[in-house]
Amino acid sequence: MNRRTSSISFHEPRPAAGRSNSYATSVSSRPSRSHTRRISGISTVELETAEEPLDPTDHAVAEEIAEIKRYEDFTTIDWVQDAAREQQRRKARRQERAGFFQQKGRIGWRRTLWEAYDAGQGWIVVTLVGIAIGLNAAFLNIITEWLSDIKLGYCTTAFYLNESFCCWGAESGCDEWHHWSGWWPVNYVIYIMFSTAFAFTSARLVKSYAPYAAGSGISEIKCIIAGFVMKGFLGFWTLLIKSIGLPLAIASGLSVGKEGPSVHYAVCTGNVISRLFNKYRRNAAKTREILSATAAAGVAVAFGSPIGGVLFSLEEMSNYFPLKTMWRSYYCCLVATAVLAAMNPFRTGQLVMFTVRYDRDWHYFEVIFYILIGIFGGLYGAFVMKWNLRVQAFRKKYLSKFPILEASLLALGTAVICFPNMFLRIDMTEAMEILFLECEGGHDYDELCDAQNRWRMVVTLLLATALRLFLVIISYGCKVPAGIFVPSMAIGASFGRMVGIMVQALHERFPDAALFAACEPDVPCITPGTYAFLGAGAALAGIMHLTVSVVVIMFELTGALTYILPTMIVVGITKAVSERFGKGGIADRMIWFNGFPFLDNKEEHTFGVPVSQTMTANPTALPATGMKIRQVEKVLAETKYQGFPVIEDEHSKILIGHIGRTELRYALDRAKKEQMASPDARCFFAPQEGSCSASTPLGNAPAVSFDDMADTGGQMSVDFSKFVDPTPISVHPNLPLETVMEVFKKLGPRVILVEHRGRLTGLVTVKDCLKYQFQAEHTHDISRAAANRKDRQEERAWEVIKRTSGWVREKIGRASGGRLRLGDSSPPPPTALDDGRPASREAEVELEDRRNVV
Amino acid sequence: MNRRTSSISFHEPRPAAGRSNSYATSVSSRPSRSHTRRISGISTVELETAEEPLDPTDHAVAEEIAEIKRYEDFTTIDWVQDAAREQQRRKARRQERAGFFQQKGRIGWRRTLWEAYDAGQGWIVVTLVGIAIGLNAAFLNIITEWLSDIKLGYCTTAFYLNESFCCWGAESGCDEWHHWSGWWPVNYVIYIMFSTAFAFTSARLVKSYAPYAAGSGISEIKCIIAGFVMKGFLGFWTLLIKSIGLPLAIASGLSVGKEGPSVHYAVCTGNVISRLFNKYRRNAAKTREILSATAAAGVAVAFGSPIGGVLFSLEEMSNYFPLKTMWRSYYCCLVATAVLAAMNPFRTGQLVMFTVRYDRDWHYFEVIFYILIGIFGGLYGAFVMKWNLRVQAFRKKYLSKFPILEASLLALGTAVICFPNMFLRIDMTEAMEILFLECEGGHDYDELCDAQNRWRMVVTLLLATALRLFLVIISYGCKVPAGIFVPSMAIGASFGRMVGIMVQALHERFPDAALFAACEPDVPCITPGTYAFLGAGAALAGIMHLTVSVVVIMFELTGALTYILPTMIVVGITKAVSERFGKGGIADRMIWFNGFPFLDNKEEHTFGVPVSQTMTANPTALPATGMKIRQVEKVLAETKYQGFPVIEDEHSKILIGHIGRTELRYALDRAKKEQMASPDARCFFAPQEGSCSASTPLGNAPAVSFDDMADTGGQMSVDFSKFVDPTPISVHPNLPLETVMEVFKKLGPRVILVEHRGRLTGLVTVKDCLKYQFQAEHTHDISRAAANRKDRQEERAWEVIKRTSGWVREKIGRASGGRLRLGDSSPPPPTALDDGRPASREAEVELEDRRNVV
Repeated sequence: MNRRTSSISFHEPRPAAGRSNSYATSVSSRPSRSHTRRISGISTVELETAEEPLDPTDHAVAEEIAEIKRYEDFTTIDWVQDAAREQQRRKARRQERAGFFQQKGRIGWRRTLWEAYDAGQGWIVVTLVGIAIGLNAAFLNIITEWLSDIKLGYCTTAFYLNESFCCWGAESGCDEWHHWSGWWPVNYVIYIMFSTAFAFTSARLVKSYAPYAAGSGISEIKCIIAGFVMKGFLGFWTLLIKSIGLPLAIASGLSVGKEGPSVHYAVCTGNVISRLFNKYRRNAAKTREILSATAAAGVAVAFGSPIGGVLFSLEEMSNYFPLKTMWRSYYCCLVATAVLAAMNPFRTGQLVMFTVRYDRDWHYFEVIFYILIGIFGGLYGAFVMKWNLRVQAFRKKYLSKFPILEASLLALGTAVICFPNMFLRIDMTEAMEILFLECEGGHDYDELCDAQNRWRMVVTLLLATALRLFLVIISYGCKVPAGIFVPSMAIGASFGRMVGIMVQALHERFPDAALFAACEPDVPCITPGTYAFLGAGAALAGIMHLTVSVVVIMFELTGALTYILPTMIVVGITKAVSERFGKGGIADRMIWFNGFPFLDNKEEHTFGVPVSQTMTANPTALPATGMKIRQVEKVLAETKYQGFPVIEDEHSKILIGHIGRTELRYALDRAKKEQMASPDARCFFAPQEGSCSASTPLGNAPAVSFDDMADTGGQMSVDFSKFVDPTPISVHPNLPLETVMEVFKKLGPRVILVEHRGRLTGLVTVKDCLKYQFQAEHTHDISRAAANRKDRQEERAWEVIKRTSGWVREKIGRASGGRLRLGDSSPPPPTALDDGRPASREAEVELEDRRNVV
Repeated sequence: MNRRTSSISFHEPRPAAGRSNSYATSVSSRPSRSHTRRISGISTVELETAEEPLDPTDHAVAEEIAEIKRYEDFTTIDWVQDAAREQQRRKARRQERAGFFQQKGRIGWRRTLWEAYDAGQGWIVVTLVGIAIGLNAAFLNIITEWLSDIKLGYCTTAFYLNESFCCWGAESGCDEWHHWSGWWPVNYVIYIMFSTAFAFTSARLVKSYAPYAAGSGISEIKCIIAGFVMKGFLGFWTLLIKSIGLPLAIASGLSVGKEGPSVHYAVCTGNVISRLFNKYRRNAAKTREILSATAAAGVAVAFGSPIGGVLFSLEEMSNYFPLKTMWRSYYCCLVATAVLAAMNPFRTGQLVMFTVRYDRDWHYFEVIFYILIGIFGGLYGAFVMKWNLRVQAFRKKYLSKFPILEASLLALGTAVICFPNMFLRIDMTEAMEILFLECEGGHDYDELCDAQNRWRMVVTLLLATALRLFLVIISYGCKVPAGIFVPSMAIGASFGRMVGIMVQALHERFPDAALFAACEPDVPCITPGTYAFLGAGAALAGIMHLTVSVVVIMFELTGALTYILPTMIVVGITKAVSERFGKGGIADRMIWFNGFPFLDNKEEHTFGVPVSQTMTANPTALPATGMKIRQVEKVLAETKYQGFPVIEDEHSKILIGHIGRTELRYALDRAKKEQMASPDARCFFAPQEGSCSASTPLGNAPAVSFDDMADTGGQMSVDFSKFVDPTPISVHPNLPLETVMEVFKKLGPRVILVEHRGRLTGLVTVKDCLKYQFQAEHTHDISRAAANRKDRQEERAWEVIKRTSGWVREKIGRASGGRLRLGDSSPPPPTALDDGRPASREAEVELEDRRNVV
């Protein structure tokens, strides 16, 4: 229960000061020490020195730093500072080496070995991570297959075998594999029971142990890679629960896929393993490289598509993708897929998920139908995004207290609906495989290829498309590990196959039409399987707004290289159509929806205003000399700014640096504790005359500065100058806002100071820019009336749900004599895991609701 | 002859001032007006207003601007300013639209149409460009095939058919296709004659009409896309000559490929066509998008690999690749390859160059040999780069006067050497196709698969590898259109096949060895064709230092998807090995070799110095008030800086802006001409009090300012403030140099001012950074002694060549009675083409020889 009381509220009321408080963060309330000791999450600004913490005092310093890092959840990393620190570290290492060389004359083998290890650490980490991801993926594949099949029957020879292993070698089914019953209603009920149980277990695990393991995770990881800090999101518990919950969620038959969660567990693996290495614990930029690489590996193992993974990481995950990262990603994908291939979980001996070999080439007249499929993809994406976001809003508002019940009921409903439809009953991957196949060559699933069956198939496929569409909209975002790639592809495949069958029928009805002139007589001309293949690509492109990655993933999935131009055409059309309905795929929309401070690289803006219009004018600044510790403490207590500009004096306002809140807090505490500095001691934020040579004043070196402190003036004056960044990024007040946003996007400072003729006039943060952007672009979008109407609709929906659930509860309660209770609203049992956070926290992720701004 | 005298020398002696002149450019000598009127090359900084030049006076202004753009050859584009201008333009358009709306009440259909056109211009341009590239590629393919075959024989039914069209349907040869003679020595001589004639024609065309059409062009395009201005490099004549010269060069049998030149002509096409559209004439950033897209299309049509093209453009060409560009590239590649596929130049009905279908999967034990191939790739790349660069240096020093003779002699030598070797005689693409094939299935070229022939084949292949390697080193860089992709792949393929044959022999010799335990008995286990395939990929990766693009290109070339993991392993090993030998592929090395101002994104540096160490301290600055026109003229005449900071006064040095040289020159000329400003008139570089509201002072608006000029104070004072950029990027002198370089790389300003407490202390350019980098990193690399030794070696080689050529000339002269003269050193006949530049200009491209710095 203690865990509960120490949870942090991120919804603090905003002070009334208006714009000037935009720099405030919500991290002021301090989590209790005992429960967040473990430092997980991405590495953040650190105050270490350039040297390794080798001796005990240094170690103590490192501990202290780890302690203050806890303040930094839900902030962003300052990439400029991070890079500067890394450069200083490397320089120090080089100097150290040079000194060593001079001292000893020559370098011993031990040192050489150590240096080689240090240089190769990155590759060691990536290799380990790749192997771990590959093993995990193989394990997940096997478990998922088994769980999926157990819903329909069991293997008499060994219960732990799935159908295909049980019937190894047999073409379709065998005697060893038993259905649960000979009578289908019993099978139906068992199917539903298994589905619900799986979903319940998955949701229960997520809620109790790792709330962050819910959902897809792609949008959060995108923000984390861009520098946002979310502790625990990539922690060990999230990894574990995601890995266990994912097979359960997929096997439950919910319309969710494994790709988003694959990315998430892969990135968790990368984070957990790289934490073990010194180099990565202390450097955010290097960690980001690893995270990008593991995100690529996640997609690679999910689809068996190594190059597709690299491109996905490039196109979707990373807003800045240097070539070095590409090379790391490439390697990580290679290792992960090689391990997966060696494990060979499908026993097909190949990586390609469904090998499809189309014997016929395409005809130019088919482009008309390809365009149709492309348009479908675009519309599909826009439709799903719009309605899924509304469902998410509804879920956040009304359902956040009932995550387990929701997931279980969804699985129940899905099972009830899906069992009767032949394409919905089976696993989505399996369904796609069937839909992709050519009719020739003896593979026929339930007379899919039968000419007599054609219209029945069209209706079944249409029904499958529509139902799955509805299910995806309500399922994606529920509190189990859930991706949206495969469901989208399954929908696209069923729609595409439907179009294909219709075109085929058209051709057979009018074989002599001018349209079909290119067809050779008496030979099958249309391959409906290719339409399914293209439909899957279109839907995937539509939902994610990706192009190149989708094309490559589709090839690596199937190997249908002759269809490269059709695929490119379809994906291109989809992209063009979906751009009509707004920028960004579902991951970007989720970022926006959750209000993460993320500047999207894809968007271009034209504001035509100087930065002075958005900046926080007259920010709280610290004069370089003359402030007492008591005053500084007061400033810290009264404001929530993440940092403070340092100026020469209040009058001239000449800018001389910037000090972060964390650094200041840390320095103050240390000064009070170790130097017994009195509250009346004077603080100096600029180097005092002659005290030190400021030749390379980048970065901070606290461990050194504390030793110096006593010399600079006893207890009555404290020198903080070592903690001040003397070269913050600063711009002219008339610089266009667009340029400033470019600086944020491309260089990544946490704050940009605005300086005119040497005088500080303001400061600006990413959030200031986002806020202005929101004001400028969305004022007219959401009118008050429309928002109200939406709210009313949501309320009405909630009323209906409540009434229904009340009725059901009453009935069940009466029937079971009160023993069965649905709607588990009691708090979860206390656990010893400090990583488990209350589920309601999830709903509080937004730093501030953007609607307040309008 | 006039053309010759007007040529610009870029080798002006550097003044003695040392570092302070690094900002000087070499553009001071002014090309004569009559010959460079046509504005070709990439768009550069322009001074236009936000409005369209519609009325005559505006048009005149536009003309003037076009005029001054000529000064800007061999400078770089200021991306920050360019973006600011574009934003202003868009804002003006929006305001205009709003005004229109208010005025007319509603928007007419004509306006709607015009706006749609304006918005869709980008897509129209890309479509047109894509079609043009596809058509051109098809044309090139057909011509090349015909020219290649004509060397060996001719078609009796129609002379313009190549062998495969002549013998359409027949498996190998037919009666209609005649060899020139039945006796092989005659064929040999005819082969040699054709080869030499082709090379001669190609070199002659290049020298006379478009010297920029020589070589690959990839490194120059890389710089151009990064913002470097090279006029004529992407002009119409270059396009034409490259398109004609390329088939000749390839058919001549020189060891050159068509991919680099394909990129070059594709980018020329993009540039030439986009020039026709208003939107692109005036915007460098948008043009860069088109250029990136066309570079992708160039690779796409060269290999029939659309996705590979996009990735090549991403990995190699563009140092900054926003996703919008990716989407444009994707579309451009799609159009170009679709057109090429529709033209169907090979009559194979597919895009895939050589369809290879490997029936057998690979075995894990083969990884050992894959690693071997990967290592070969890395060594190959390093070796070729090292020696090719030395040959290039030699060529530049001694051979630049004999480009035609050199190419002809190379072709002659190549023909003489290659004819006897079965793999060298045929076209490189054809050779690769043969080497890639499986032995099973009846395709056998000259008993390549014969078990008895094995050792003969190994020797032949080894010879082919070695000879081709030597030929590539001496041929790449000669003055015909020449790429290095296909030759590298051919070398890799022959080496790979050799390894494959040896492994096969090993397996057949020891079928029961533990190594081959995975092989099934009595079935062929090793497929040598796959080794050739992997070898080609390895060599390509080794020479270009690419990873993902190579893998994708290899697939799209062949469709061998089951070999994705082996390909990735091989390419990965190659990359790892080649990184041992220095960063960057051959294109990067050529950039460095030619001294282009290009900051490589791939490199990471640790200097550990503040920017103040590299900056030009106390740059020539203009005080905001009080300077006379005469004085400004003097400053312009005496310095070569590309721009001048504007300061409040000489004493305070408060920075208030920056004015470009071009803008200043232009403003001065106009002021003198149109306002009769006397040389004693005062210049104002800052807005005078109350004269205008400096609310959004970004960009420049000359057309307006000239109307205002008369009001601001008659002929005795001139207001230049409209030309001053009031918000130049400025940094603190203590900012680390690495951060400043990041700013250059990511934001792309032409100059960064260094400002301390509002006072100007210096300025820094890309070249300052490059110079420092060179000093810091290469001081030890090239010692004086080693350089001397190199020089002596080169001299000796030149002596040998001269003596040989003298001897040959004497012999031939004697034999032909003085009628045949080799070594055409007379100047080419004057032509009316203003785009043709003297060939020696090529050698003068370097702005300054970097060695001078050391």
